[in-house]
Amino acid sequence: MTRCQVAIIGAGPAGLTLAHMLARQGIDAVVIEARSEEYVRARVRAGVIENSTVDVLTDLGVADRLHREALVHNGFYLRFDRTTHHLDFHRFDGRHAYVYGQAQIVADLIDARKAAGLPLVFEASDVTIDGIDTATPEVSYTVDGRREHIVADVVAGCDGFHGISRTLLPADVRTLERVYPFAWLGILAHTTPVTEEGMYCAHPDGLSVHSMRGEHITRQYLQVPADTDLADWSDDRIWAELKHRSASDDHPELETGEIFDRSLAPLRSVVTERMQTGSLFLLGDAAHIVPPTGAKGLNLAVSDACVLSHALGQFYRSGDRSWLESYTDTALPRIWAAQNFSWTLTSILHRFTDDPFDEGLRRARLRRWASSDAEQQALGEVYVGLPFPTPWRPEQG
Amino acid sequence: MTRCQVAIIGAGPAGLTLAHMLARQGIDAVVIEARSEEYVRARVRAGVIENSTVDVLTDLGVADRLHREALVHNGFYLRFDRTTHHLDFHRFDGRHAYVYGQAQIVADLIDARKAAGLPLVFEASDVTIDGIDTATPEVSYTVDGRREHIVADVVAGCDGFHGISRTLLPADVRTLERVYPFAWLGILAHTTPVTEEGMYCAHPDGLSVHSMRGEHITRQYLQVPADTDLADWSDDRIWAELKHRSASDDHPELETGEIFDRSLAPLRSVVTERMQTGSLFLLGDAAHIVPPTGAKGLNLAVSDACVLSHALGQFYRSGDRSWLESYTDTALPRIWAAQNFSWTLTSILHRFTDDPFDEGLRRARLRRWASSDAEQQALGEVYVGLPFPTPWRPEQG
Repeated sequence: MTRCQVAIIGAGPAGLTLAHMLARQGIDAVVIEARSEEYVRARVRAGVIENSTVDVLTDLGVADRLHREALVHNGFYLRFDRTTHHLDFHRFDGRHAYVYGQAQIVADLIDARKAAGLPLVFEASDVTIDGIDTATPEVSYTVDGRREHIVADVVAGCDGFHGISRTLLPADVRTLERVYPFAWLGILAHTTPVTEEGMYCAHPDGLSVHSMRGEHITRQYLQVPADTDLADWSDDRIWAELKHRSASDDHPELETGEIFDRSLAPLRSVVTERMQTGSLFLLGDAAHIVPPTGAKGLNLAVSDACVLSHALGQFYRSGDRSWLESYTDTALPRIWAAQNFSWTLTSILHRFTDDPFDEGLRRARLRRWASSDAEQQALGEVYVGLPFPTPWRPEQG
Repeated sequence: MTRCQVAIIGAGPAGLTLAHMLARQGIDAVVIEARSEEYVRARVRAGVIENSTVDVLTDLGVADRLHREALVHNGFYLRFDRTTHHLDFHRFDGRHAYVYGQAQIVADLIDARKAAGLPLVFEASDVTIDGIDTATPEVSYTVDGRREHIVADVVAGCDGFHGISRTLLPADVRTLERVYPFAWLGILAHTTPVTEEGMYCAHPDGLSVHSMRGEHITRQYLQVPADTDLADWSDDRIWAELKHRSASDDHPELETGEIFDRSLAPLRSVVTERMQTGSLFLLGDAAHIVPPTGAKGLNLAVSDACVLSHALGQFYRSGDRSWLESYTDTALPRIWAAQNFSWTLTSILHRFTDDPFDEGLRRARLRRWASSDAEQQALGEVYVGLPFPTPWRPEQG
């Protein structure tokens, strides 16, 4: 039996960021992860990091490698009707988006936690959470054949949409959901990016996305039907379709090369309307899912971590539970703002329906985005990151 | 048999504005209207006029009364969660929206045409249009028991969605359409407006709209089911519902008073994908319908009149038919921009579905509109009027 203040379930961006925020406030936490360290470090996810997120990671002292290696982007490209438009958000407020893989952030957070000698358990099996309706919830798990028990004040559920934490919410908490009729077929390839910043191509045959993970590594996606079988997509077919959808009158043709990773991801939007119950608080994918369009997943996880870390700071500093009690209400508006952004990008950039009226509206919106500075500024505010609901710790003084 | 250059079918905003634009270019036109002058002058329609439209009417010399009597607004109010937000668009670019009834504009245009002694025929029955696939189309009609025939170069179909002009389009021209599951119950009342500029109240029970036609005349609307029977709505019920939906924590309660006009209007969006065939050109409601949200109908009619007047100016000045041939392509993008604006306002301001995910997105969008200057500027650009596709006559020189 171990005692700690906060038991964190899951060593993804939400759990690891929260752990660093708490450590910096002198709040002791244990991070428990079901997967192996190798698995967690290799998990490929989105790679666009908000300026708001980078500010927090920098403040936490875990962004040195990010600042050395990340590509710093002013916005993105939008291509339709064979014409390319650059949406430059940096010009409005001097902020950037950073291209840096989620796996790299996770690795940086793990390295920093290990360097500080703080508890981080991988390959914890049979994790259970008990007593969340008490002030002494207990987390149990098996590692190296031993059963361990941790009694905490608070459990932070950062174990994703398929983790156990969200299954502990009361049955009357609604999960609001939207499922899309398409998926993203993603590749990693050894090629040079077609544009120096990421590009969305809104083609009549479907969206293609052309982003990068470095100067000679590209991350590219194709909108495909939800029931697509990856086996039907040879390298040649993938390149032909990426070239077709990205064809333009103003840029050279897409470069092709070796594809070294491929995957298929469904798109969905999920919001759990209450992110807490008793001593259990949900963060990141355990509480909400965004489609990959706009790359908000990791950024929302860090936003949630800020809100909970701030609330825990208030609690341990003064015994004031009010911020903990209002965790959901504090976190949700920004989550909905990101959902609205992701939904808007998703609905405008994809071929969504065959209704020609929808198609007319969609094209009108694309033209507005391409032509109006105000529209671009409004998009940019969310793309580079709305302010977090709270700072990651209570203001000093 | 009479000869003229342009036969204009319909004496609404599209036809009358076009007639003035042509007269100023020395192009002779006849305006033929099926209804009586009294009917046309009394027809109540939207009352928000874009700055772009006012600029053209001023340039045409028909806006003296408008400038004396119109209310000049900087934007509108948006109320939700019992809280009122003012969206001030004027601060971004110095432009305004003008509150001035469509019936007044029509009266001003009729008065000016009569004063100039130019042909304007009311109560023309059995209007027919022949030979639109020739360069000498013929318009025939009966007035005072006489059958009249006009041979023109061009016929301008400004006779609305239920007029004959649009029935002459080839069968393969698609009409793209969206029908909404609700209608607007509208009243005119002798009361003082609750706010000094118009207000949209996005209430969980449905939209209410609070606009005005003067300092002591209000024009107010309630979202109601599409199958509503006006007979079910007593004055008391109307006021109770208007008060309920507009209840706030920051303004006095709505003033009630005598209701002197009531009407029920369905909402729909329509775009005819080709607005011309041979010598026939469609303008305004004959080619497209917008829902009343955002009040774009009259403004689009004037936009179309600009494009056709400019094209006819080119044609009669130089014999160049290319602007006539590209009339649809020139006019449509701005029509779609207005459709997108009307659709966006309609979908965000109304209670649209019972899907809680939709409701979450809708509320997120309302909060963005209330809190982001960039969002407000983007809305305002369209509300006070995007630039017209062309000037109303070819540039001098």
